Amino acid sequence: MNHPAAVWTALQELRRNAPLVHSITNYVAMDITANALLAVGASPAMVHATEEVEDFAGIAQALVVNIGTLSPAWVEAMVRAAERASAAGKPWVLDPVGAGATPYRTGVAGELLRRRPTVLRGNASEILALGGGAARTRGVDSVDASEQALEVARGLAREGGGVVAVTGAVDYVTDGERVLSVSNGHPMMTRITALGCTATALVAAFLVVEPDPVLAAAQALAVLGLCGEIAARDAEGPGSLRWRLLDALYRLDEEALLGVRIA
Amino acid sequence: MNHPAAVWTALQELRRNAPLVHSITNYVAMDITANALLAVGASPAMVHATEEVEDFAGIAQALVVNIGTLSPAWVEAMVRAAERASAAGKPWVLDPVGAGATPYRTGVAGELLRRRPTVLRGNASEILALGGGAARTRGVDSVDASEQALEVARGLAREGGGVVAVTGAVDYVTDGERVLSVSNGHPMMTRITALGCTATALVAAFLVVEPDPVLAAAQALAVLGLCGEIAARDAEGPGSLRWRLLDALYRLDEEALLGVRIA
Amino acid sequence: MNHPAAVWTALQELRRNAPLVHSITNYVAMDITANALLAVGASPAMVHATEEVEDFAGIAQALVVNIGTLSPAWVEAMVRAAERASAAGKPWVLDPVGAGATPYRTGVAGELLRRRPTVLRGNASEILALGGGAARTRGVDSVDASEQALEVARGLAREGGGVVAVTGAVDYVTDGERVLSVSNGHPMMTRITALGCTATALVAAFLVVEPDPVLAAAQALAVLGLCGEIAARDAEGPGSLRWRLLDALYRLDEEALLGVRIA
Repeated sequence: MNHPAAVWTALQELRRNAPLVHSITNYVAMDITANALLAVGASPAMVHATEEVEDFAGIAQALVVNIGTLSPAWVEAMVRAAERASAAGKPWVLDPVGAGATPYRTGVAGELLRRRPTVLRGNASEILALGGGAARTRGVDSVDASEQALEVARGLAREGGGVVAVTGAVDYVTDGERVLSVSNGHPMMTRITALGCTATALVAAFLVVEPDPVLAAAQALAVLGLCGEIAARDAEGPGSLRWRLLDALYRLDEEALLGVRIA
Repeated sequence: MNHPAAVWTALQELRRNAPLVHSITNYVAMDITANALLAVGASPAMVHATEEVEDFAGIAQALVVNIGTLSPAWVEAMVRAAERASAAGKPWVLDPVGAGATPYRTGVAGELLRRRPTVLRGNASEILALGGGAARTRGVDSVDASEQALEVARGLAREGGGVVAVTGAVDYVTDGERVLSVSNGHPMMTRITALGCTATALVAAFLVVEPDPVLAAAQALAVLGLCGEIAARDAEGPGSLRWRLLDALYRLDEEALLGVRIA
Repeated sequence: MNHPAAVWTALQELRRNAPLVHSITNYVAMDITANALLAVGASPAMVHATEEVEDFAGIAQALVVNIGTLSPAWVEAMVRAAERASAAGKPWVLDPVGAGATPYRTGVAGELLRRRPTVLRGNASEILALGGGAARTRGVDSVDASEQALEVARGLAREGGGVVAVTGAVDYVTDGERVLSVSNGHPMMTRITALGCTATALVAAFLVVEPDPVLAAAQALAVLGLCGEIAARDAEGPGSLRWRLLDALYRLDEEALLGVRIA
């Protein structure tokens, strides 16, 4: 498959449609997530009150559920929105931030996973924790390489019927059978907060324009990683990397997409 | 009227007084709102607990109420703060983010509007929704042009006794009789999250230094739009546009203000 | 003492260990705080639910408690996390944002102070308010110079058995007996929101690698101030100052640290 061409098709469609992405995400990630969605061409909205999440999930084209700064009232909203999105046949993505770090967090992540997200996107420690494996989590950053979580990811995907994306130096996307790897990215990206959450948000946007969720997730991760590479060329640290990354998402064109490394 | 000169007078006064602007705003907008207020010369404070909002509204010089990421506890605080500000004769501005998107949101916006904000600042879809008109809202972004909402805005202003600002490619400010238009701004500004919320915050700051709320709102919108134009000259995307906009707010001088387009 | 050399030792250790800093902080500060901790080499995590704060405080290496946007549920979490950190012998830092502005805020700050933070970091108005002195607070920004709060800071430190840092144009750090001053910084830093909160977060990170809390606090404040100076050389306003400051934290090396001014 010609992945750069397929990403270009998806990206053009995304910019034409500007899909409304409903995000129930953490406080730390809201700014960068919203700005990244706008830069790439989507239309973000952060809505979390139980009084309106179901209504909003009904009008949005995709949903992000991210447990980074969770609390019981937010979890209730997450569950309701996820169920509404599922019932309406709309894609939704789960980001189990810090699963494995505390029993509460792992429990909530599991509870949401049982609602069968279209895509589960986590780092290796989080995916291992959700698979019941020997995760060694440390706060919200992974201490495991993505390769180590690939088999657990395949198992979770087969079990839940969805797609699982494990991100790290190399990202893996699997539906339990197929496995795509994405080798884009730059080490300095780990020094910007919430870029994992941003990856999750971009996956949601691409799910609106690419019907195959394995491809959609891989394309979103490749786009973010590639823009990180482009930004890193002139960045002198994570401060400049961040705004250059947003500029790169905005300017991304067919030629630059030749740098996409999906296999 | 010589608008550039009047804006310069207001801006100098703002920088001298550094008005304390109490903001009950959404999670997404807090960072850019606070930084924009600081850059232009005001002093922002985000305070939302019902236990202290009335006390704080009492010491602040202006209040912002923005329902972007609302929930019942926050709405209670918004109502209390608005009533206290009104009782104390202090200006306050309502930003009805996403009014029309869900019944809950539209209801809360209407409930706050009945407290008679000094200025109501929204996009065309939000203003149309509050006027009971045929708004076509889509998440938190407008699908209507500001011109289409001008008559509804005039009606809302006459009815409520306050000023209504409808922002878009051209902004309109009206007290029901007078109408000022502001033609500053740049299309790339729509790719930065929460710039509408930032406009609302700047309106609050200008209300402290310019007693005519029609003029104050127009001046604030012109300043933000003009700084967006200045920033766009060298921006390569929304990432660089954002920090350049903050720099422009900080550096804005009498000469640059000749670019103000209020009519 | 050779402070530049000591800071370099601490910074290298910080980058090697990447201490996990548990932050219960305000909504406005989360983005810049997390990004500054990542840029300097630490690993931030924002966790606030009462269901998990104690578990998380148990795995983190330091704790930040910042009352900027407080509400009762968050205060409960702050108290529990502080008590757990204290019981486990882990350092924690209190940032009493806006103490003195409202009775609720001053009361909560006092309640947390009674849990004996390793370091209390505030501006002059906040420290004066906590000392029961004649503070003239104005929102969350100080109207008093740090010198005026030094004696009150010494008294609070002696009384509570911890270290108090009063920040301003010159920062003072005291355990009631010793006093260190830090003269790094740049006036434009006051135009970026939440840099005081960022100072608090860096103090927490340095407490993990420097056992003397007076030194740790002074080192963290010197590092932030020095990076502000470096950033200000090429900044054209607070927008560019902010990302340049993050780049400077990331790039800080032994030579640049010769600019540290601790006395």
